[in-house]
Amino acid sequence: MEIAREGDPVYIYIDEKRRFVTRLRRGGVLGTDKGFVYHDELIGKPYGSLIKTSSGCPAYIFKPLRQDYYSRGILRVTQVIYPKDAAFMIYLSGIGPGSRVGEAGVGTGTLTLAIASIIGSEGKLYGFDISEKALECARVNVEKAGFSDRVILKKHDVREEIDVEPLDAFFLDIPDPWNAIISVSKVLKSSAPLLVYVPTTNQVEKTVLALRESKAFADIHAYELLLREYQVEKDAVRPVTRMIGHTGYIIFARRVLATQ
Amino acid sequence: MEIAREGDPVYIYIDEKRRFVTRLRRGGVLGTDKGFVYHDELIGKPYGSLIKTSSGCPAYIFKPLRQDYYSRGILRVTQVIYPKDAAFMIYLSGIGPGSRVGEAGVGTGTLTLAIASIIGSEGKLYGFDISEKALECARVNVEKAGFSDRVILKKHDVREEIDVEPLDAFFLDIPDPWNAIISVSKVLKSSAPLLVYVPTTNQVEKTVLALRESKAFADIHAYELLLREYQVEKDAVRPVTRMIGHTGYIIFARRVLATQ
Amino acid sequence: MEIAREGDPVYIYIDEKRRFVTRLRRGGVLGTDKGFVYHDELIGKPYGSLIKTSSGCPAYIFKPLRQDYYSRGILRVTQVIYPKDAAFMIYLSGIGPGSRVGEAGVGTGTLTLAIASIIGSEGKLYGFDISEKALECARVNVEKAGFSDRVILKKHDVREEIDVEPLDAFFLDIPDPWNAIISVSKVLKSSAPLLVYVPTTNQVEKTVLALRESKAFADIHAYELLLREYQVEKDAVRPVTRMIGHTGYIIFARRVLATQ
Amino acid sequence: MEIAREGDPVYIYIDEKRRFVTRLRRGGVLGTDKGFVYHDELIGKPYGSLIKTSSGCPAYIFKPLRQDYYSRGILRVTQVIYPKDAAFMIYLSGIGPGSRVGEAGVGTGTLTLAIASIIGSEGKLYGFDISEKALECARVNVEKAGFSDRVILKKHDVREEIDVEPLDAFFLDIPDPWNAIISVSKVLKSSAPLLVYVPTTNQVEKTVLALRESKAFADIHAYELLLREYQVEKDAVRPVTRMIGHTGYIIFARRVLATQ
Repeated sequence: MEIAREGDPVYIYIDEKRRFVTRLRRGGVLGTDKGFVYHDELIGKPYGSLIKTSSGCPAYIFKPLRQDYYSRGILRVTQVIYPKDAAFMIYLSGIGPGSRVGEAGVGTGTLTLAIASIIGSEGKLYGFDISEKALECARVNVEKAGFSDRVILKKHDVREEIDVEPLDAFFLDIPDPWNAIISVSKVLKSSAPLLVYVPTTNQVEKTVLALRESKAFADIHAYELLLREYQVEKDAVRPVTRMIGHTGYIIFARRVLATQ
Repeated sequence: MEIAREGDPVYIYIDEKRRFVTRLRRGGVLGTDKGFVYHDELIGKPYGSLIKTSSGCPAYIFKPLRQDYYSRGILRVTQVIYPKDAAFMIYLSGIGPGSRVGEAGVGTGTLTLAIASIIGSEGKLYGFDISEKALECARVNVEKAGFSDRVILKKHDVREEIDVEPLDAFFLDIPDPWNAIISVSKVLKSSAPLLVYVPTTNQVEKTVLALRESKAFADIHAYELLLREYQVEKDAVRPVTRMIGHTGYIIFARRVLATQ
Repeated sequence: MEIAREGDPVYIYIDEKRRFVTRLRRGGVLGTDKGFVYHDELIGKPYGSLIKTSSGCPAYIFKPLRQDYYSRGILRVTQVIYPKDAAFMIYLSGIGPGSRVGEAGVGTGTLTLAIASIIGSEGKLYGFDISEKALECARVNVEKAGFSDRVILKKHDVREEIDVEPLDAFFLDIPDPWNAIISVSKVLKSSAPLLVYVPTTNQVEKTVLALRESKAFADIHAYELLLREYQVEKDAVRPVTRMIGHTGYIIFARRVLATQ
Repeated sequence: MEIAREGDPVYIYIDEKRRFVTRLRRGGVLGTDKGFVYHDELIGKPYGSLIKTSSGCPAYIFKPLRQDYYSRGILRVTQVIYPKDAAFMIYLSGIGPGSRVGEAGVGTGTLTLAIASIIGSEGKLYGFDISEKALECARVNVEKAGFSDRVILKKHDVREEIDVEPLDAFFLDIPDPWNAIISVSKVLKSSAPLLVYVPTTNQVEKTVLALRESKAFADIHAYELLLREYQVEKDAVRPVTRMIGHTGYIIFARRVLATQ
């Protein structure tokens, strides 16, 4: 039975609208409209425990999963790739324990952490961004998540030549991915996949056309995922009334052999 | 540069409607309506190479990715969990290198292979099914994919007590998951997630209500993913006309501490 | 050129988030966070005119369309059938000028008004509800919209025998439509369609099964419509971030000849 | 009780995959893989009747509704606006009995018939197309549907000046609607809506931007509708596996007063 310890990130679940991720520290307090949660009461408790807030509301303390880091709290996060999209991109990328992966732009590092959790300590993730400020934030997040062993963050504009070992996959989340196709293609192993994330149909068009014209990629696909959540009561199942109608489009392509 | 060798599974891409996964063998031939592809010509070629069919059609030879195994060819596959759903379930499960995972029913093993590729050689996947025939098929697929080191397949009805070490996550794809909640809850570590996959809203209702009543799970969610593919031509971007309108619903829940 | 007159309902458009339907009266004022709109300035203006609020914000005054009545303002509306659903139901019903139509429950009358606008002054709409309070509200709305000539509202529980001439179509929006199938079937002309609106999948199941068992209906279909709105800027087209994820399900069936 | 007569269009329903619209004529035969249906047996039968094919399969004979004309059979139809889209466009247009409406391009006339069925014999629909061949086909369809009294079809390119009375609404389904905005705006009454239908996001962008730049329209919206059908069996409700993933986008705008 795993125990929550000082310094651990924990996921506190009161109800659907009150879910928090925080890092345990002696004397810490989480304030909610359903009462306070005192960190000292959590430290030493097994994960999965039922506790009570200062107002007597039941709450669960869980060990956080990948998707919980998207919540405000432990990580300083700005704009993110949603779990449904990160999940599909990682799946299509084929990466697993030991993979060599590239990522740009890193932003505050949410996709970075998800990739790092998949490639394991044998893997290597090279993350690039042109904003030093974003990278600083990402570095803190990577360190707190315990992934400093496998993540290398570097200020670099990937639209220019990239200095890195041959990679098993590349994730591209920048405003003009079509300008990075050539430089990225040069660091991708032959047959390895590229995953691009863009919010508009215009970017989808430019990226797909540039991939085709590059002759460096084939098997090019553009996707969109819609996630619906359901509310379930006895004799009353239905999708929830409000949903996220759009996050971004995912483009997939495979690197072909260079000299053709 | 990685080379395709005899015995390797390869993914052959002619065009959007002609994509094949096959295992290379001396003298082997892939017959298509765009001509034959002779295995002997592929053996020794680097992945990503452009080749020609006997009719002169260009084709690419790629190293297969996770999602390519869903194609007919190398694997004997019946009903499957689609990549979009497998991706989201694996992502939400939090599994990574070294995880201990349970799965039932295994079927012919497509989700099994995806999970196995994520947990790595340090991980362990215990797969259960009540059909010996399905398990035989899954065993062949696991072996061919090179995952015999981490996958243990066993004929067992998970609605009854399960004999296995404490698990980090459990994937449940059986017709009546509500009948397996208690037995599965007993092998899940406290705080660990359960992922359920069902095709109908009636099964969603029964499963979610049973999870709530069990008091063994909290933070219960039911989801549905819709995947749209886009066709991209210059000045003409639009979703493709036909899509898969439904695959299944995904239910997520976290194990809470037993003694409450 | 049509002129806005005292007593007319008008639709005032300031921007996407500030759209109002109100009835013009001497001395009337519409207060918004972009300034006041004085009714006296609107009276006598042609529809389509550009005006200014007291803060100098440009605003348009339009003649309201069917869907504008869904806005708060002129009509007292509670729960409604959304335009996308009302549109599809009316379309599938085949009604047009002169049709004889039944509706239950009427509620505050938004679907009533839409149907009334389609059947014209030669048509006849019989609206039923079990709530006198709802009917009073609907009566006010019908009168204000000028449809008293064709709409007859009556307190009645349509799960019991309905006293009305043979109808060309029936719209059913009550919690337990399966209990009204027999009584409704008796007032529907042979071959005429029934349209049912329900929010949950459980109600879809019960209704469709009851329709089949009744032997009074055939060609039974259940639908769901998802509406996405797009935001369009130069070089940046994308769906809006948030959308309505669920309103209700639409069931369609055709009355078959009684004596079989 | 209405009787099917010689010359009437009828909708014959055998099962979900066997639905036909045909016009009854003495000696006529409908051939299906479930047997023949002899027109002579249908003539004189009340609508809603259960009949049998020559193989003994039960079949219903219904009076066709608007949406049934989309089927092959009585109408010669090529590319069409789907019922879900036609329904929403007509609804948003505000048209009803007596409306004056414009439409271009008419094509083979499916939207034409739907509009004509709504505006009634007091209404007037001016339909334009640049293809004489399409118009000929549309004319036959309009005549067979009995709408010659209210529909005027004319060969004309609506990107050039349109000679017609002031209109209550205009439906535009041509490849480059942005080139017709000025000419259409001149025949639309102030405050009246324009509805545009286009298949690609690029056309959505060009149309919306042109509408904004014209200063002749405000309250501009772009929509997309997704229709899912459900299959319902006892204890097994779920969306059908395959669906239409895309038809077209709908753009709505209101004409503002000309002199501004």
